[in-house]
Amino acid sequence: MLNDLSLPASLAIGTGSVTLRNATEQDLGTLMRLLADDPVSATRGDIGDAHDKPLYLAALLAIVADPANAHLVAVDASGAVVGTMQLTRIPGMARRGSTRLLVEAVRVRSDKRSSGIGGAMMRWVMDVAARELGSSLVQLTSDAARRDAHRFYERLGFTGSHVGFKFRVD
Amino acid sequence: MLNDLSLPASLAIGTGSVTLRNATEQDLGTLMRLLADDPVSATRGDIGDAHDKPLYLAALLAIVADPANAHLVAVDASGAVVGTMQLTRIPGMARRGSTRLLVEAVRVRSDKRSSGIGGAMMRWVMDVAARELGSSLVQLTSDAARRDAHRFYERLGFTGSHVGFKFRVD
Repeated sequence: MLNDLSLPASLAIGTGSVTLRNATEQDLGTLMRLLADDPVSATRGDIGDAHDKPLYLAALLAIVADPANAHLVAVDASGAVVGTMQLTRIPGMARRGSTRLLVEAVRVRSDKRSSGIGGAMMRWVMDVAARELGSSLVQLTSDAARRDAHRFYERLGFTGSHVGFKFRVD
Repeated sequence: MLNDLSLPASLAIGTGSVTLRNATEQDLGTLMRLLADDPVSATRGDIGDAHDKPLYLAALLAIVADPANAHLVAVDASGAVVGTMQLTRIPGMARRGSTRLLVEAVRVRSDKRSSGIGGAMMRWVMDVAARELGSSLVQLTSDAARRDAHRFYERLGFTGSHVGFKFRVD
């Protein structure tokens, strides 16, 4: 995981706060539910099925073991996980040798959406994580169906300048 | 570099072929010219300026040293570099724990475009590299201005299902 990040971090949300920390194996069930708690993800096979637990566990352990990757969770005052995201630091030659910070799998628990958690997480990525990791570009892709998410990223200062192409290997 | 890849690899191009291999420090000047040989890239600061050489060298060395990354070059029969691309293997939990293969900085030398080099490089990524690296999803973003590139990726079987958002850190 990205050891240069100052974690855990406290993020102000309205009158309260959430704590951002690295996910651990103990978060696996919660992460599976978060990934399934979303109509777009469900169409891609993320349905929180217990039979898939070994697949998700292997993925989480691979992320934790990878120095260029981190899977983070946002935890509320009661200790409940209310959000998650994956970060990947990618060295690159384009844009005069810019190191990129890729954000994937951004999710906020459905009953906590529109409460400022996602915005606080993304602002932390843009203002803190990118600097701590020496990244001059933050990038992500968002499914074309997620219109509300697109407005959310634009309000934060992102530019939807690209088309994101995906190819599923059989 | 992604040591599991079977490189160098010979890619058929019409009646001839190009050889795909890992880029080395000796390719630096050529890579800088390739990145600048493109109107969209030029607007982002990739202009092949000799003063920027240390930035590109640091980036190339970081890629070569990173086991999750590779910068490849396609070389013609005369030994000239005619194309390049960067690959990044990214473990992930979404899509039932799919490992992704991200493609960045795809470039073909301007006088060699539409000759099948880019298509052969991408088919190798989709058919060979993704399998060798255990990746079930290949993904990339393409600037919205690159309409020809979008048709190219769609013909290869990619789906432009996402919007790619970028945020430049000051």
